[in-house]
Amino acid sequence: MVSITAATVTDLRFPTSRTLDGSDAMNPDPDYSAAYLELSTSEPGLTGCGFVFTIGRGNDIQAAAVEVVADRLVGRELDGLLENPSAVNRELNWDSQLRWLGPDKGVMHMAVGAAMNAVWDLRCKREGRPLWSTLSHLEPAEVVALVDWTYLSDFLDPAQAREILEERRSERDSRIADLRRDGLAAYTTSPGWLGYSDDKLERLCRQALDDGFNTIKLKVGADLDNDCRRLGIARTAIGPDTALAIDANQRWSVPDAIAAIGRFAEFNLRWVEEPTHPDDVVGHATIAKAVHPVPIATGEHLANPTLAKQLLQLGGAQILQIDATRVGGVHDLVAMILLAARAGVDVIPHAGGVGLCEAVQHFAFFNAISVAADPSQLALEYVDHLHEHLDQPVEVTSGRYRLPTQPGAGTAFRPGTAAAFAYPCGTEWGT
Amino acid sequence: MVSITAATVTDLRFPTSRTLDGSDAMNPDPDYSAAYLELSTSEPGLTGCGFVFTIGRGNDIQAAAVEVVADRLVGRELDGLLENPSAVNRELNWDSQLRWLGPDKGVMHMAVGAAMNAVWDLRCKREGRPLWSTLSHLEPAEVVALVDWTYLSDFLDPAQAREILEERRSERDSRIADLRRDGLAAYTTSPGWLGYSDDKLERLCRQALDDGFNTIKLKVGADLDNDCRRLGIARTAIGPDTALAIDANQRWSVPDAIAAIGRFAEFNLRWVEEPTHPDDVVGHATIAKAVHPVPIATGEHLANPTLAKQLLQLGGAQILQIDATRVGGVHDLVAMILLAARAGVDVIPHAGGVGLCEAVQHFAFFNAISVAADPSQLALEYVDHLHEHLDQPVEVTSGRYRLPTQPGAGTAFRPGTAAAFAYPCGTEWGT
Repeated sequence: MVSITAATVTDLRFPTSRTLDGSDAMNPDPDYSAAYLELSTSEPGLTGCGFVFTIGRGNDIQAAAVEVVADRLVGRELDGLLENPSAVNRELNWDSQLRWLGPDKGVMHMAVGAAMNAVWDLRCKREGRPLWSTLSHLEPAEVVALVDWTYLSDFLDPAQAREILEERRSERDSRIADLRRDGLAAYTTSPGWLGYSDDKLERLCRQALDDGFNTIKLKVGADLDNDCRRLGIARTAIGPDTALAIDANQRWSVPDAIAAIGRFAEFNLRWVEEPTHPDDVVGHATIAKAVHPVPIATGEHLANPTLAKQLLQLGGAQILQIDATRVGGVHDLVAMILLAARAGVDVIPHAGGVGLCEAVQHFAFFNAISVAADPSQLALEYVDHLHEHLDQPVEVTSGRYRLPTQPGAGTAFRPGTAAAFAYPCGTEWGT
Repeated sequence: MVSITAATVTDLRFPTSRTLDGSDAMNPDPDYSAAYLELSTSEPGLTGCGFVFTIGRGNDIQAAAVEVVADRLVGRELDGLLENPSAVNRELNWDSQLRWLGPDKGVMHMAVGAAMNAVWDLRCKREGRPLWSTLSHLEPAEVVALVDWTYLSDFLDPAQAREILEERRSERDSRIADLRRDGLAAYTTSPGWLGYSDDKLERLCRQALDDGFNTIKLKVGADLDNDCRRLGIARTAIGPDTALAIDANQRWSVPDAIAAIGRFAEFNLRWVEEPTHPDDVVGHATIAKAVHPVPIATGEHLANPTLAKQLLQLGGAQILQIDATRVGGVHDLVAMILLAARAGVDVIPHAGGVGLCEAVQHFAFFNAISVAADPSQLALEYVDHLHEHLDQPVEVTSGRYRLPTQPGAGTAFRPGTAAAFAYPCGTEWGT
């Protein structure tokens, strides 16, 4: 009988603030970090991995929270956990004392996400499948049973969710074949970080075209005139046929967002991302209505499916940008993908940081295979940073993500990473 | 020159789960706890206190988060901090790396609240005033300047907020005199905990009447038939003229809440508290509309003013129950009080736990003096638990809170408390 023998949490930090990679209007100097969980088992070589992405300070608090949650799994028998992950999900989310610290949001909820993603990493490794494949091969009723419907059923109930999944069921194998051949469109944020010079912006825009990307995203929100100038540089560099999106990283009030987006009309924007506070679902709806038909996108800071439900109920987003480590893991992400389908909204996940591309691609592929009405409309963010630290780096060629083939959830870091980047004693940080 | 010399954080836990005090449908076995911050200064005898209330497990994570935030204040010169607390508030809330862990919610945001409340405790002790008095004696423009308006101005802008405060300005001294004489109505939850027997419920209801309370609240939400039976016992015990409220502690979905509240019609409820998930502002609005004219109350788990704004915009609550330690401290609480005034919604704060009555009464009195249109409608929760551990226990007589007279924010625990209740080494916990 295999059991979980230990939960090891490492505070990994990468000194990205030294080069201004990842700088935007809200996050001028991030050190991309991961509160990284490894669940060891009594089966030789079998480890389940999960993490929470953060941007530096506080990663120690996040790591401590992951430890408190994951410690509940130590000593547990593996078959029991993997047979009914929804019971584990409910146990971790509804701990009567820890729930007070959220509920369902912030440090404690993201800690549950790391633990649940590690449980699914174990399940996939045992089955010998990548996570997208495990999820796509569940029966519709099994997918529905993953979701905690307590606070969602007024917008989407289990029967309606099952109907959506049943409708796609017959296309599964052909969609997998298409995606195996063509991959899934990536879009790139690499040229658009706020700390880059105009020359670097222009050069990286051209580079992105050469690399096969058909959508480029720029960070905006610190200064409107500067934003317009940079958008002009980018639009000139990429021409009229490549899509151009912007990301304001929550810097605007509702009226400021409406005014700013109005000023950007000439740039024909594919979407405007995080115009205001991520909790402000009503504000997003007001903005979306005012700037129609410019699509509003948000989601990387949406703390839970209950907030996603409302955003979609009110028409506050036309694109939902799920993030692999912001919410409570696999079960929450499946819920959000189903909610988006109910609303007729495309899921274009947030990625970048460190490890986020590797983790979230599985949900993008699952959506494209089992849930989305039209997979040709889908895409997935790509930033070419730090992939070398992951055990199974993403494969992005000709501007498209390739279908992962290795077993697991894509959440494992390379064994050597901790020696260099563990904080504060790794060789990159230590004295 | 006085400076802050140390930030000491203590994990205080009270073993309330042993007696089922505080048991409800969501929280069956809380150990009331506080992540308790003391800011020492170079002025002999001057210490600023703040805390986050939690219900047990995870209080260590909360304490670690308070430490990360409060450490930023150590070494700082006191006059500078106290002269412009809004700058401190902004600095702590907008830390570009820590903000990722929220934003503005959960463990990290409550940690900011403890730090800001400790700063205000210092300010009040230096001025020799209780917090309600410090706040009530600010000019309208100074109160408005406390609030971070970034995400609020589409519902209430600074000019409108100032107008509300100017309107009340002339009544200030007479309102203070009235409140000094009569106090502020308390309501009691003491009889209604879910773990109590029917006999105890009935006995405590009668006791509450004898003690002068005119509103009693029962916990519901675990089982509808049981709820109806207990409501019947309570209504019989208190008669038709005492107000009866219920608290479902988030146990219902939106449709379940509407159905349950329909079944309770015969009990003439003063309000229904936390019918569903606290983040579901749209759901609250749906419920409020369906059960009109039964008032919906919520707020103790509202993570920030941005969520409160939406709840009020949509008419999702007719009573706003602010909590002293759920949000980012004084500045957020002042914002929420002003938002409620804009919406014409009464503020009836959440209290109980440990220390919450002592801390939140200052905001209830500030609201009654400087903001509310009709202070006679206001009240404040009261639970007769654990007050002996606070440095300045509340004074509640004849069912009314008495105006605090001691300098400070009411956030200091007694010096002896830590020796017994520090976790895990205090004498109540240690082996």
